[in-house]
Amino acid sequence: MNVSRRITDLQASPIRRLAPYAREAVERGIKVHHLNIGQPDIKTPPRVIEAIQNYREPLIAYGASEGRDDLRAALPAYYKKYGADVKSEEILITTGGSEALHFTFMTLCDSGDEVIIPEPFYTNVASFAQAVGVKLVPVTSRIEDNFALPPLSDFEARITDRSRAILICSPNNPTGYIYHSEELRALLDLCERHDLFLVVDEVYREFCYDNEAFVSVLTFERYADRVVCLDSFSKRFSMCGARVGAFVSRNKAVIANALKLAQARLCPPEIEQIAAHAALGTDDSYLVAVRDEYETRRDAIVAGLKGIEGVSVSSPKGAFYLVAELPVDDAEAFAIFMLRDFNLDGETVMVSPCENFYLTEGMGRRQVRIAYVLNTEDLARAVSCLKAGLEAYQAKTRSR
Amino acid sequence: MNVSRRITDLQASPIRRLAPYAREAVERGIKVHHLNIGQPDIKTPPRVIEAIQNYREPLIAYGASEGRDDLRAALPAYYKKYGADVKSEEILITTGGSEALHFTFMTLCDSGDEVIIPEPFYTNVASFAQAVGVKLVPVTSRIEDNFALPPLSDFEARITDRSRAILICSPNNPTGYIYHSEELRALLDLCERHDLFLVVDEVYREFCYDNEAFVSVLTFERYADRVVCLDSFSKRFSMCGARVGAFVSRNKAVIANALKLAQARLCPPEIEQIAAHAALGTDDSYLVAVRDEYETRRDAIVAGLKGIEGVSVSSPKGAFYLVAELPVDDAEAFAIFMLRDFNLDGETVMVSPCENFYLTEGMGRRQVRIAYVLNTEDLARAVSCLKAGLEAYQAKTRSR
Repeated sequence: MNVSRRITDLQASPIRRLAPYAREAVERGIKVHHLNIGQPDIKTPPRVIEAIQNYREPLIAYGASEGRDDLRAALPAYYKKYGADVKSEEILITTGGSEALHFTFMTLCDSGDEVIIPEPFYTNVASFAQAVGVKLVPVTSRIEDNFALPPLSDFEARITDRSRAILICSPNNPTGYIYHSEELRALLDLCERHDLFLVVDEVYREFCYDNEAFVSVLTFERYADRVVCLDSFSKRFSMCGARVGAFVSRNKAVIANALKLAQARLCPPEIEQIAAHAALGTDDSYLVAVRDEYETRRDAIVAGLKGIEGVSVSSPKGAFYLVAELPVDDAEAFAIFMLRDFNLDGETVMVSPCENFYLTEGMGRRQVRIAYVLNTEDLARAVSCLKAGLEAYQAKTRSR
Repeated sequence: MNVSRRITDLQASPIRRLAPYAREAVERGIKVHHLNIGQPDIKTPPRVIEAIQNYREPLIAYGASEGRDDLRAALPAYYKKYGADVKSEEILITTGGSEALHFTFMTLCDSGDEVIIPEPFYTNVASFAQAVGVKLVPVTSRIEDNFALPPLSDFEARITDRSRAILICSPNNPTGYIYHSEELRALLDLCERHDLFLVVDEVYREFCYDNEAFVSVLTFERYADRVVCLDSFSKRFSMCGARVGAFVSRNKAVIANALKLAQARLCPPEIEQIAAHAALGTDDSYLVAVRDEYETRRDAIVAGLKGIEGVSVSSPKGAFYLVAELPVDDAEAFAIFMLRDFNLDGETVMVSPCENFYLTEGMGRRQVRIAYVLNTEDLARAVSCLKAGLEAYQAKTRSR
């Protein structure tokens, strides 16, 4: 029997390929430091857990397809903190940021349409696009430029009559780059000239370091009609398993389209929306403390990596990822080596090879993404493992 | 700016078109009996609510993309009650039955492929199919046959080289029909001869009346490789707002494909999966009591409708819907009339026009779907409203 080619052809992410090696390492008693996934170790705000514990409805009924009224009513005040004027009816609650991404491709693009995206990018973007027939067209951002916005001419050169949108993520997963106000304005200008949408994934909005100001795409009034903003409670309140995100647009046709998709799947998870609503009441000191903690970790991991010979690191300003270039030919082979053939006093490290974060052939082969979601002590040990692992790997490859 | 045609072209369901009239009726102080949606009024098992209240994790972390291990491990024993041998690894937990439906079209079909389906059918099936470029090909089942399986020759005549699957729902939404063992075997045989999948939506499995035996498609060992079963906790445990369903197949390539989609969206709602796991421990007496309650309601509504001149009703055996044919030319116009222009002592009824439950032009124009999700007292009042409403509507249309 035939199953669909569109899904069969989807490549498994390198993390899935590495998973068996990680399992075997654990079975051999090795402690694996997970720098490969964006699962924060920060506690969820207690009020979120309490809201779940206080659930008292006798019947868990269908909610509204657009999301709970109380949650949608509370969000404009949150966006206002970032200077954005957003109305409840311009917000659809989604089942995680993932569904907001799916809605984006479905809402803006027909099969065969194109979306231009700076690479490296969050790999699941490619899965969602490919699954529904949308072609991602990459523009390469470079580690030596700190992964800043590539020249506009690079974007312009890739615009065709099938282009529908430019999609960026700020603060960026995986690079940690935060797009400046001028970069956003330039992109919006380009979109206006070529009649494209600008889609911005802002799920890491709160994670900005070095007093870097975050500028939301939702604050550019003039371009409001061509903006889609993707959002999520997952990272902000360390509640990734509660699948609550948002799809925000002031373009009525876009919201009307997304609402049809929302209606087909009936409603987002009701109890977890109650938890998300409670999260919005979290004192800002929580977010500040979390940000400070990640800033400390960022400093520790960047300093640690810079101390390893041959390793290049960009200067990440936000989110909790960075891309490092390693003195190896094949980062995936190295990542497997770390899990299968190496340990330092019973410990090792799992990192994400970056090749799948790029679409351009050959890019990222020497790069890994590192998620600094561990405490500084574990990060220090992880850096020691990486350093020793690189030495061992180089000795091994040289000896061949 | 262009938004996607594939979504813009999706027709809004008639219920969405009726919603403003229902709102206005309520604003005028009219009590509207909702026979239009499948939102049970039955209480969720208390142990489900307690499991939510007992949530104690300090951090709501990402779960497994396939669903929680404990939930997947518990499900085989549940399927065993229906005589089906299903292993945990043949089950993926989905975000509601809706996502299982989306996974079905994506997993089995490329854009342009076809799925054959008896009409009338659950309207959202058409939304999911159309959104991802799958063509639904209808085979008409008829009220005068009690909506039984149409002749196999009707299916066979519609098979092309793009056909990938036959999709049925049993017990059926909207007709209440339960497919017999011989009907399932005949369909499976047909699928085998033409190398198709048989997809069965069994979310109403527990709702079978008149001692009608339910036969799960999962019990047909010989055809296991070409079967996909869609499941959901929503109706069974009256927990529709907790979005937990399942996608079940013993075909490894199908599960591998569905898993890729599951991985892209990271994980199903974690807390609501815990609730679903608790639901599985519900005493069977709960399900028996619920079934008995619906059977009583079914008897009441069918008897009531048969007492209205000119109304035809099939003999629904399961789920909690029925399709009735009314003595009107246009059921949607009548449904609007009931909300906008009619009340009986301050009460009226909202029903679902059936035209959108059919793909064949002109079918279902005189039919409505009735969900008997109200207690018998309210159902009796709803029937009185319908009877008086039909008389008033006929008087009005005759007078024109």
